[in-house]
Amino acid sequence: MLVIKLGGSAGINTEYTLDDLATLWPGERVVFVHGANAALDAFMQAQGRQPRLVTSSTGQVSRFTDRETMDDMLAIYAGRTNKRLVEGLQARGVNAVGLSGIDGGIARGTRKDALRVVEDGKPKVLRGDYAGSLKEINTHLLTLLLDNGYLPVLTPPALSQHGEAINVDGDKLALRLALALDAKALVILSNTAGLLADVNDATSLIRQIDISSDDSTEAAMTAAGGRMKKKVQAGIDAVREGIPLVVFGDANTERPITAAMNGQGTQLNATTSVVSST
Amino acid sequence: MLVIKLGGSAGINTEYTLDDLATLWPGERVVFVHGANAALDAFMQAQGRQPRLVTSSTGQVSRFTDRETMDDMLAIYAGRTNKRLVEGLQARGVNAVGLSGIDGGIARGTRKDALRVVEDGKPKVLRGDYAGSLKEINTHLLTLLLDNGYLPVLTPPALSQHGEAINVDGDKLALRLALALDAKALVILSNTAGLLADVNDATSLIRQIDISSDDSTEAAMTAAGGRMKKKVQAGIDAVREGIPLVVFGDANTERPITAAMNGQGTQLNATTSVVSST
Repeated sequence: MLVIKLGGSAGINTEYTLDDLATLWPGERVVFVHGANAALDAFMQAQGRQPRLVTSSTGQVSRFTDRETMDDMLAIYAGRTNKRLVEGLQARGVNAVGLSGIDGGIARGTRKDALRVVEDGKPKVLRGDYAGSLKEINTHLLTLLLDNGYLPVLTPPALSQHGEAINVDGDKLALRLALALDAKALVILSNTAGLLADVNDATSLIRQIDISSDDSTEAAMTAAGGRMKKKVQAGIDAVREGIPLVVFGDANTERPITAAMNGQGTQLNATTSVVSST
Repeated sequence: MLVIKLGGSAGINTEYTLDDLATLWPGERVVFVHGANAALDAFMQAQGRQPRLVTSSTGQVSRFTDRETMDDMLAIYAGRTNKRLVEGLQARGVNAVGLSGIDGGIARGTRKDALRVVEDGKPKVLRGDYAGSLKEINTHLLTLLLDNGYLPVLTPPALSQHGEAINVDGDKLALRLALALDAKALVILSNTAGLLADVNDATSLIRQIDISSDDSTEAAMTAAGGRMKKKVQAGIDAVREGIPLVVFGDANTERPITAAMNGQGTQLNATTSVVSST
């Protein structure tokens, strides 16, 4: 069982991943998760609207998802991007089924009514945010599909405690899925070769993060900047919670999943057992 | 087994249908099909683009679906509209799963490379149209979902012979589904009370079309104008091909499905057996 996450940043050629999935499938059980972050930004900007990024009181940057933004998210994540990926897989003979986290109640989270943010240096409370933290994965539908020859293609949003669509982080969705499905590996593909020690030096790839070593983990967290910090933390958590292997791989290379499983990119694992943080 | 089709015209309050589905489910096996025609038009116009309607050499009016329009169709049909309906059902405790015809290869059709149309009175050949006629329904995924407690929510597009997303008529999709699933009834809900003998007179509802009577069938086809003609023809074909009951019902009334099954709207059936036209 593999969980593959294809990032939604700009400049990713999805063809490589789709080709690779078509060679791996059905020999390998796979759940394919994707984002569409850059496509959503471009889509909103084309309509003359700016994505609203907010900084929480704990310093986390996230997209403020009002109802209109959720409409756009459903259109671009669950609609255009998801179905174009399904189409690409179907054209390659893979019987893909595209789903969002709300379908069949796959992914559930908690929506907060009020979001505490800092804007222009001042604390503020924002209401009307349709976002939340992931709490629960129901694997029933995914297992049913896998057992019957379908490859699930999954994307945010998730479902809130009140049955509303809520924005959740795609990497965390992939991580929780990998744990719930007892995956042997979680491969996170994006538009970089992996985690770089120096973001301006493509040759500074960190090949391995041994999360049973405090030094290795600390070095990785120091190297990671911006959005990558969140990804690396998610990867470290995943290994700590029991996924044997997490790889940050390059989506823009031939057979990116196979390459990641064969040692390319940044491999996160534990050479000696670690105490679970949960 | 019921197949319910909710139209995509303007001015439809979807809440009534969702409420009714939540009372019928899971006592009744249901596949829920929907369109999003008016939402797609509005969406394209908001981006400053006009939907391009073309008239075929046989007089049929259809939407010219270039690649960009298909992107929008995926966003609005399979994305925003489909997932908002799924969300509405999930909030009502119905374990809905939203799908397009391309997911799991549910609906397949034939894409024509060249479309012969008449524009400004002149015959033309248009290329780049992603549309086609429905050829085949694969019920495997739908039956799997129904047998396991999920309510499928289905929308165009379908999949071409080359694995491309193609625009197909939503009513025909519902009709083919009803036949393939051996449904006892097909309920087509829209923003009118049913088929009116006089389109300007709401009291002129045709209550029954007995398709075993040539007179009744002819009267119905004469009364139907515009888009309704295609719907009525599809309904007549459906009964002719073996669906016991087809109802054109009013979406904007309380419990619209139950009302349609209880004799409201326009009922199409055959009081004596008819020879199948297929």
